[in-house]
Amino acid sequence: MTGAWAAMQRVFEERDRQDVDEVRIAGLAELAARVRELSELVVLTRAGQDEVAAVAGEVEALTRRLAEAGRGVPPGARVDEGGVVRQIGSPVTGELNVLAPPIEIGVLPDGTARSEFTLGVLYEGPPGFVHGGVSAMVLDHLSGVAASANGTPGMTAGLDLRYRRPTPLHVPLVAEAKAVRVDGRKTFVESRILGPDGQVTAEATAVFIMPSR
Amino acid sequence: MTGAWAAMQRVFEERDRQDVDEVRIAGLAELAARVRELSELVVLTRAGQDEVAAVAGEVEALTRRLAEAGRGVPPGARVDEGGVVRQIGSPVTGELNVLAPPIEIGVLPDGTARSEFTLGVLYEGPPGFVHGGVSAMVLDHLSGVAASANGTPGMTAGLDLRYRRPTPLHVPLVAEAKAVRVDGRKTFVESRILGPDGQVTAEATAVFIMPSR
Repeated sequence: MTGAWAAMQRVFEERDRQDVDEVRIAGLAELAARVRELSELVVLTRAGQDEVAAVAGEVEALTRRLAEAGRGVPPGARVDEGGVVRQIGSPVTGELNVLAPPIEIGVLPDGTARSEFTLGVLYEGPPGFVHGGVSAMVLDHLSGVAASANGTPGMTAGLDLRYRRPTPLHVPLVAEAKAVRVDGRKTFVESRILGPDGQVTAEATAVFIMPSR
Repeated sequence: MTGAWAAMQRVFEERDRQDVDEVRIAGLAELAARVRELSELVVLTRAGQDEVAAVAGEVEALTRRLAEAGRGVPPGARVDEGGVVRQIGSPVTGELNVLAPPIEIGVLPDGTARSEFTLGVLYEGPPGFVHGGVSAMVLDHLSGVAASANGTPGMTAGLDLRYRRPTPLHVPLVAEAKAVRVDGRKTFVESRILGPDGQVTAEATAVFIMPSR
């Protein structure tokens, strides 16, 4: 595991040395936002077969246009004003990743990693509710941020999730995570998602293991 | 929980009564595949600012075109030849959902739900490896299919994940899940992801609770 960790650290550092042009990042984030809207329409549109095929052809042409300039490596991380490291290509928080809602994570003075977000139709599991795996993904990521905020970042070794009630789509949700205990190289993080009524919909205990140096 | 379950069932049945036009579904799946390719380029392109902005404008126009025909409800489920129910709008298996890899799940004669799939750059957590939350999402979904295949479908009550080693991107992975025990209304499902070398990268125990009738 140590070898893998070291390799990851090297790649992270290499990517972070890339020129980060804030204006260009903002433009790509804007493009990702537009592609998210398009993705919702793919599921919801009532457009007929011919129109759908025509649009697919146009999308293919746009992909070719973006490919013409060449393919780079995925973007690295950015450090926000609050000192929070944010992976802009991440499937959870990445402004540039169409898959990401994306959620924004802040760290409170007591070390709690916190996010407010709303999930749309693309994150649906049971009708009207968030896919349990999506809740898992959010809590996994948030817990990692809390472990880092605690000064004890590491690899996730375990994530124990309890689903208390369905998590609704289309309404503001809150997720929180906080490191509660460090035991040698292990950091334990408790996290939860709260619905708009303040009730816990899902909660988790995560264990992170710090690499040996 | 029973009320929520009954409401979900009603919505499922309603959606399943929608006319499912296989040709139209295939067209939308094709469009989703093209939008997935575009989404990768958003993260990888080296195109300049002006080109990125121009493409964003084109994407917005395509979204408007699809919206003109009206917005329906998300598509329902389809039953495959093998008798497997597949939610075509799901963020894990949905051919129509840009967020989904999508993974295809088959059920073996012994009740094991199984999938072979490869994850690209949009599913990245640590550099070169699958985001832990994505592994959680795949195992959560696969476990639900295994519980259903066992004749004991239900709501996920818990998912206990153990990460054994990093799961690599860009290589064929296998995921398996099987119901191992039923205790009253509870069904226990064991699942795992295997890397190309056959080693387990992540495993989970899920508990599903069947609704009372």
